[in-house]
Amino acid sequence: MTDKKLDFDWLSRELCKMYEEKIPFNTVLGLKIESINTESVSTKFQMRKKLVGNFMQKILHGGVISSVLDATGGLMASISLLQKALNQPMEQIEKNLTRLGTIDLRVDYLRPGQGSYFISTASIMRAGKKVSVTRMEMHNDQGLLIAVGTGTYIVG
Amino acid sequence: MTDKKLDFDWLSRELCKMYEEKIPFNTVLGLKIESINTESVSTKFQMRKKLVGNFMQKILHGGVISSVLDATGGLMASISLLQKALNQPMEQIEKNLTRLGTIDLRVDYLRPGQGSYFISTASIMRAGKKVSVTRMEMHNDQGLLIAVGTGTYIVG
Amino acid sequence: MTDKKLDFDWLSRELCKMYEEKIPFNTVLGLKIESINTESVSTKFQMRKKLVGNFMQKILHGGVISSVLDATGGLMASISLLQKALNQPMEQIEKNLTRLGTIDLRVDYLRPGQGSYFISTASIMRAGKKVSVTRMEMHNDQGLLIAVGTGTYIVG
Amino acid sequence: MTDKKLDFDWLSRELCKMYEEKIPFNTVLGLKIESINTESVSTKFQMRKKLVGNFMQKILHGGVISSVLDATGGLMASISLLQKALNQPMEQIEKNLTRLGTIDLRVDYLRPGQGSYFISTASIMRAGKKVSVTRMEMHNDQGLLIAVGTGTYIVG
Repeated sequence: MTDKKLDFDWLSRELCKMYEEKIPFNTVLGLKIESINTESVSTKFQMRKKLVGNFMQKILHGGVISSVLDATGGLMASISLLQKALNQPMEQIEKNLTRLGTIDLRVDYLRPGQGSYFISTASIMRAGKKVSVTRMEMHNDQGLLIAVGTGTYIVG
Repeated sequence: MTDKKLDFDWLSRELCKMYEEKIPFNTVLGLKIESINTESVSTKFQMRKKLVGNFMQKILHGGVISSVLDATGGLMASISLLQKALNQPMEQIEKNLTRLGTIDLRVDYLRPGQGSYFISTASIMRAGKKVSVTRMEMHNDQGLLIAVGTGTYIVG
Repeated sequence: MTDKKLDFDWLSRELCKMYEEKIPFNTVLGLKIESINTESVSTKFQMRKKLVGNFMQKILHGGVISSVLDATGGLMASISLLQKALNQPMEQIEKNLTRLGTIDLRVDYLRPGQGSYFISTASIMRAGKKVSVTRMEMHNDQGLLIAVGTGTYIVG
Repeated sequence: MTDKKLDFDWLSRELCKMYEEKIPFNTVLGLKIESINTESVSTKFQMRKKLVGNFMQKILHGGVISSVLDATGGLMASISLLQKALNQPMEQIEKNLTRLGTIDLRVDYLRPGQGSYFISTASIMRAGKKVSVTRMEMHNDQGLLIAVGTGTYIVG
């Protein structure tokens, strides 16, 4: 733990573990982190029966899509916060991460949520001292764009 | 089933049953319909462990809030559609309800989602031939406003 | 200028003057403040030829509607900021007002913008230390709801 | 005017002329079309005194940004509509274009609107029979991203 690069890697691994295992509703969604860096993150989840909204056509509930896009954007905002906070003491970093929250979210539903799994990505648009803005996309297993979204997060 | 009033009551009861029992992700959320009429609807759900986002502070996951607001707005749009479709044959009504879908959703998170239960309401802003717009609010058991949202739904 | 009540009245009058006269694009829109208090504000503008978007049907350009809703929400956020800042020195208040800015805006266009004048109102949903959220409505001279919107403003 | 390619070129030229010259508020904004094709469009406008919101810092009024993003997204939706309507009679095309309207708009303000000119681009996310969705970006003369937005348009 002697240089910043290591710190960031270690911190982001801890963050991922917390994100996948300690956030109850993320486990309901079955969210897994695919990749993570300071400019973009991606998450994945499997289609499961309980995530369905339209039982006749077996398509995802709109709330699953908004939940996953919000969670993926929030992960991106957390990583961005982590990177800027590397010099700070651990307690301060934890405190900041705990206070991070979604201010608002917009989701655009483009195609029916059909597929065996779904990949969501987020990239950072604004990384301010108080507010971060991220844009998100969700693709299905065929690479079709299912939904896009924009999230604003309080980070200060 | 001889007059329109009865039809609407019967149809909306069927819709509620479907909404609470046949939409898998609504059962995950534990969504129940509180009241329903042609101008507003309200839904209720109980806080449960698996709906939590922040395990330290026991507050709702943002995705639960966006899911419930979307589902409540969608119910309002369905009821509005039902009312306008009373003269049509049952198959047409079912077909229209199946095709109803969220186009886009905005959610504003105003206060932490703390409480033992939450009441959401939706009212209709625009009831067009192709598109409906609804505004939603979620209050906790203390009557505090937790979140507001706006949804656009395709209804044609 | 000896008590807070007077201060607030005087400050909000100054703010109104600046808003109507010193913001160039507000004069293009012809925006006038109708009423102002700590919980809601309302503005008014006249239909004019240059504000038209659809020259065949003489309806407002969508951009006029989004501009006016943003400006009305921003005024509400400024008033809310003013009220909380009454104990601070004048320079600090001016500094805070200058830094106030829109983070994001959603506008829902409900009916064609027809009328001889339009009244917009804003009310405050969240008045935080860093971020405020307002909801806006625009009615025409017949009292018809033309558009609604939601704005998030940075205030810290 | 004997083949479809020519038709599309001619129609889109007519649309551009109308857009730049016949829409009063677009002339207030000074909007010019930079490029146009079936997948993306771009527009440009010059900074001018009357477009300013913050007279101390000479930055664009937020309403100018939302107006231009809405207008650029609407142009993209019109072009997409035009392309799909090539087989229809001219009166039908005109009718459809006249009925095209913004349903809702989200704008995210990322950086202060400073610069001598601004370029906005729109690309199509969803090109449905009833509804189209576009994403927009605005850059200043230094290539800095000033704002992004998402628009939903009724096209049927």
